[in-house]
Amino acid sequence: MILLLGASGYIGQALERALRARQWDFTPLSRRQLDYTRFDCLRDILRKTKPTFVINAAGYTGRPNVDACETARAETLLGNTLLPHTIAHACLAAGIPWGHVSSGCIYTGAKISENGTLRIERDLTRPDLRSRCVEQPSSIQGYSEGDEPNFTFRRPPCSFYSGTKALAEEAVTSIGQCYLWRVRIPFDEFDHPRNYLTKLLRYPKAYDNVNSISHRGEVADACLALWERRAPFGAYNLTNPGFITTRQVVGLVQAILKPKRSFDFWANDEEFYREAAKTPRSNCVLDVAKALAAGARLRPVHEALQDALRNWRPQGLSNLPPSA
Amino acid sequence: MILLLGASGYIGQALERALRARQWDFTPLSRRQLDYTRFDCLRDILRKTKPTFVINAAGYTGRPNVDACETARAETLLGNTLLPHTIAHACLAAGIPWGHVSSGCIYTGAKISENGTLRIERDLTRPDLRSRCVEQPSSIQGYSEGDEPNFTFRRPPCSFYSGTKALAEEAVTSIGQCYLWRVRIPFDEFDHPRNYLTKLLRYPKAYDNVNSISHRGEVADACLALWERRAPFGAYNLTNPGFITTRQVVGLVQAILKPKRSFDFWANDEEFYREAAKTPRSNCVLDVAKALAAGARLRPVHEALQDALRNWRPQGLSNLPPSA
Repeated sequence: MILLLGASGYIGQALERALRARQWDFTPLSRRQLDYTRFDCLRDILRKTKPTFVINAAGYTGRPNVDACETARAETLLGNTLLPHTIAHACLAAGIPWGHVSSGCIYTGAKISENGTLRIERDLTRPDLRSRCVEQPSSIQGYSEGDEPNFTFRRPPCSFYSGTKALAEEAVTSIGQCYLWRVRIPFDEFDHPRNYLTKLLRYPKAYDNVNSISHRGEVADACLALWERRAPFGAYNLTNPGFITTRQVVGLVQAILKPKRSFDFWANDEEFYREAAKTPRSNCVLDVAKALAAGARLRPVHEALQDALRNWRPQGLSNLPPSA
Repeated sequence: MILLLGASGYIGQALERALRARQWDFTPLSRRQLDYTRFDCLRDILRKTKPTFVINAAGYTGRPNVDACETARAETLLGNTLLPHTIAHACLAAGIPWGHVSSGCIYTGAKISENGTLRIERDLTRPDLRSRCVEQPSSIQGYSEGDEPNFTFRRPPCSFYSGTKALAEEAVTSIGQCYLWRVRIPFDEFDHPRNYLTKLLRYPKAYDNVNSISHRGEVADACLALWERRAPFGAYNLTNPGFITTRQVVGLVQAILKPKRSFDFWANDEEFYREAAKTPRSNCVLDVAKALAAGARLRPVHEALQDALRNWRPQGLSNLPPSA
């Protein structure tokens, strides 16, 4: 049996769906049923139910967005750092391997090849770099799991959210047997306040940037595939291969969904952070070669995006079946 | 046997001295000997050595002062929140009670009686309130353990240091059997960079405020007394009864040590935070009735301060014997 924590969350729902699709024996556990943030409660349920694997999809992302984490510091730390810390200890005590839904937002920028060398660029919003990402995509390399996260409390500036997610990775790495599944900017065909495409459709203005992003259903499948194949424990970047600019996403939205509205963009970082955002945003490109080599199936980002938009289900039809 | 973590720290040294004075069997454990920040390492040593009690005096206070915690966020969280979280889990798993050196700096201000009612005042730096503390001390009440900490991530503004100490209390409370020993602004007769009196003697200017403060040797004794008497687990404010203004401390320093220098004070909060400090400081009054009732012996603050100054040992003579 697989124990699924955080099944009601946005990624948790997709994991539950993927578990059902595989017809794996699993138990979603909500905090209403049992306060699994407590070491003693979690340890006892692990002893009693003896799962073969634990999945943690719970976390604190902030409502309506990551800016909320700047002020809700206790909740952000409890949800994103102390909870995985507790799970690591309880799983180690019970000898149970587990997987943690981490975030790729612990990186910023990309690696850029220039004159035969590779340099790290933290900020891809400069117009020349954005153009380059579109015109010479092969000169852009994503961060791989061996690269030290650079949008963290140790490598500021970072958002408080990203700091807590990176610290969790640091705190649980090498404690027991753990996957760190790094998801970024999830999207799929189901209209939902957490869906990147829904956000783009609803934001008054968009922020043009360059990102690797994650098809929600594919990353859920990838998480299970890594465990099914008994891939080595450790961190895995789980985004769709490649990267995309916000303008490219908006272009696809316009071409496929043909919304009546027009799309404006913030003129620059100054305007964006003055008018729309409080805390720095992670915009980054990730390399997913490790996950692909380990058996994760992730379609190229443009293909996954087009597919989600072609099958777009506006809100009202979007609800997944409720959790068991 | 009592296991002492963090014996090399400022409070840890005093705890070691108090343990020696009582001739209790104890083992100081340093991180060089064993990485006790790791749940598995700590669990294994607890199983192997079977201590009757664990004391955690390790933490991250920032060098040269608490402002350093604002930028060293990972270290501050690891030392002040994740470490006690780990110890709570390992001690629970091993069934061992423990004590944690927490901080009274999770409060700000005091309770002030006015017209027959008691109101909470977060900021005691206003000149009228400082005067009142001197002239009508009986109208000032300290926070007791039942009062919710109000200088925390949940009750901002707070310093990052205080936020991490308060979050630790929240994270370990009700996990196993744990004392939370709240120490504040430690001092004693031994000249030392962490000693409040040393700091006052070295600061170019002082910041006049109102505080409950802790004689280092007395709080170490109080920690052991609570355990020796098997006082109920939970939080205990461990400061010397009463409170004192910085001007009063400087007055005692001048009267007893007769230093050649003169003492200036920052004109107000604006000047202090503009010139000398980055992050808000906790200045607060604590009520120690609970600890006294449980058997802790803490002299009135003016008496403890005068005694420390009368026995003042300037640097050079100040080093305690090294740890065993």
